[in-house]
Amino acid sequence: VILTVTLNPALDVTYEVAALRPHATHRVTAVHRRGGGKGVNVARVLTALGVDARTTGLLGGATGEQVRADLDRHAVPHDFTPISGETRRTLTVVAEGDATLFNEPGPPITDHEWRAFRTHFRELASAAQVVVLSGSLPPGVPEDAYATLATAARTARPTAAPLIVLDTGGSTLMAALAGRPDVVKPNAAELAAAVPTAPGPQAAAEELRAEGAVAVVVSLGPDGLLAVTGEGVWRCRPPRSVRGNPTGAGDAVVAALSRALHDHRSTGAHPDRLWPQALADAVALSAAAVHAPVAGEIDHDVHARLRARTTVERL
Amino acid sequence: VILTVTLNPALDVTYEVAALRPHATHRVTAVHRRGGGKGVNVARVLTALGVDARTTGLLGGATGEQVRADLDRHAVPHDFTPISGETRRTLTVVAEGDATLFNEPGPPITDHEWRAFRTHFRELASAAQVVVLSGSLPPGVPEDAYATLATAARTARPTAAPLIVLDTGGSTLMAALAGRPDVVKPNAAELAAAVPTAPGPQAAAEELRAEGAVAVVVSLGPDGLLAVTGEGVWRCRPPRSVRGNPTGAGDAVVAALSRALHDHRSTGAHPDRLWPQALADAVALSAAAVHAPVAGEIDHDVHARLRARTTVERL
Repeated sequence: VILTVTLNPALDVTYEVAALRPHATHRVTAVHRRGGGKGVNVARVLTALGVDARTTGLLGGATGEQVRADLDRHAVPHDFTPISGETRRTLTVVAEGDATLFNEPGPPITDHEWRAFRTHFRELASAAQVVVLSGSLPPGVPEDAYATLATAARTARPTAAPLIVLDTGGSTLMAALAGRPDVVKPNAAELAAAVPTAPGPQAAAEELRAEGAVAVVVSLGPDGLLAVTGEGVWRCRPPRSVRGNPTGAGDAVVAALSRALHDHRSTGAHPDRLWPQALADAVALSAAAVHAPVAGEIDHDVHARLRARTTVERL
Repeated sequence: VILTVTLNPALDVTYEVAALRPHATHRVTAVHRRGGGKGVNVARVLTALGVDARTTGLLGGATGEQVRADLDRHAVPHDFTPISGETRRTLTVVAEGDATLFNEPGPPITDHEWRAFRTHFRELASAAQVVVLSGSLPPGVPEDAYATLATAARTARPTAAPLIVLDTGGSTLMAALAGRPDVVKPNAAELAAAVPTAPGPQAAAEELRAEGAVAVVVSLGPDGLLAVTGEGVWRCRPPRSVRGNPTGAGDAVVAALSRALHDHRSTGAHPDRLWPQALADAVALSAAAVHAPVAGEIDHDVHARLRARTTVERL
């Protein structure tokens, strides 16, 4: 099973309006609500691919209940730790094809809640082959939370420790590297912000490896992926640039990489085969996610077609 | 008791952001939530003035619960009819002192829910001296809902029928006039939209009286009020223009007029005294509401000071 963790999930709300005019009053013509947060979206994609996934994290209040109900509706297995605070919302105002985003701050987490989550997480992680740690941290959770969770996952099952995939940015990313995550997936902007002195993405990725990351996969938006690993460096490009909604693209990359690591762990294939296949699948799945009208949903035909035409180059 | 009715209430949410930039991602620095809707705000003002008020209407879902909890917190007596749909939200994005508003559509109301509300309303109205009918109608409620409620309130207690105050716009306003409301309070824009052929506000107000309104009080924003009644025509101006948040100004006018009608009904004073006093108080209370940082809250000192200096002219 692949376990995805979202410590700061959200109810993602979308307002459709005719046009966005600052200082005006807008009639909202349609309201959409869905459970969100990076790890939640990764679990959605994995479930859509038929992969055995489970999602956990912290949820509270009426908004937390709405996230749970949405995951139930979409048959995404979940097992969150309850908190006394209210889960946050994000709001996307869509007008004339353009989106404006508002991110509420997360609810404060108490020491007791963070301890309860760690206990719960150790139990869930002991049944997982891959653990995905995604997104920002809510207030009250220590900055090195992901390093703590990575270490906890390994000590929970020392003989068959799960592989750890990390997708976060900024100081949370840097503090997580002490936990030696197996794959770190920053985007180009997150990587440049984390290692501002590096002359380019490959050098910056090597810096993250020097700090503790075992492998680094950089998402370069419509230009595809760059993987800097102990087995070599690869560059993977989509056959053509796909237009659409880029919101779920990064989560699709993480879902594909996690699935590849999961399968690799089961079959024990050589890493020289793992990386080219994983990267091509990640680029194709990401493009299929961009093509889908709703973030987190996948057009399987587009995925298969792009997968066959995506090229990987060893640098 | 003054009974206020809000058929389409809302949880009013405010997001504070540094600056509003269309197509950008915004970090929300603070989130405020309070129960809202015109009738709810009128009841808040009346409660703050120490007047015995009660608020009713339709509430549902987790958002409806949040409205109830907020009214409990502020000790505003309430007695809503439950509905199966989810109460709507309004969102105000505040940036650099300016506000941008988003109004969600109301939940659809079933025939059964509308019938249950009418039964509940008749019971509440039979104990009221003044009934305030405020705001828009949610989908599923017939356009002549306010005429139906006005008639129901009178037949519930034929020997001492409550006075009816109406604050709504558009086709809902026009359809309500058949219920012969005692006071109708449109603002200048609502009045012009309702009677587009009239040469000015006084002629337009006379048209509303011809259609069934007993008296019409037009709010003219910072210019005060114009009252067109069976007892005469009055113009009331604030001593100076007050800057601030105009959101609650109209609800404060309705609260002051309702209180004046309530007191008038108890004391039986001559209408020649009722109108000048009611209008001066309404203008002063409205200015005090504009001066307050949060809609629905009143600065009592500002109210008393402005009240002493507000002038009423008989036309």
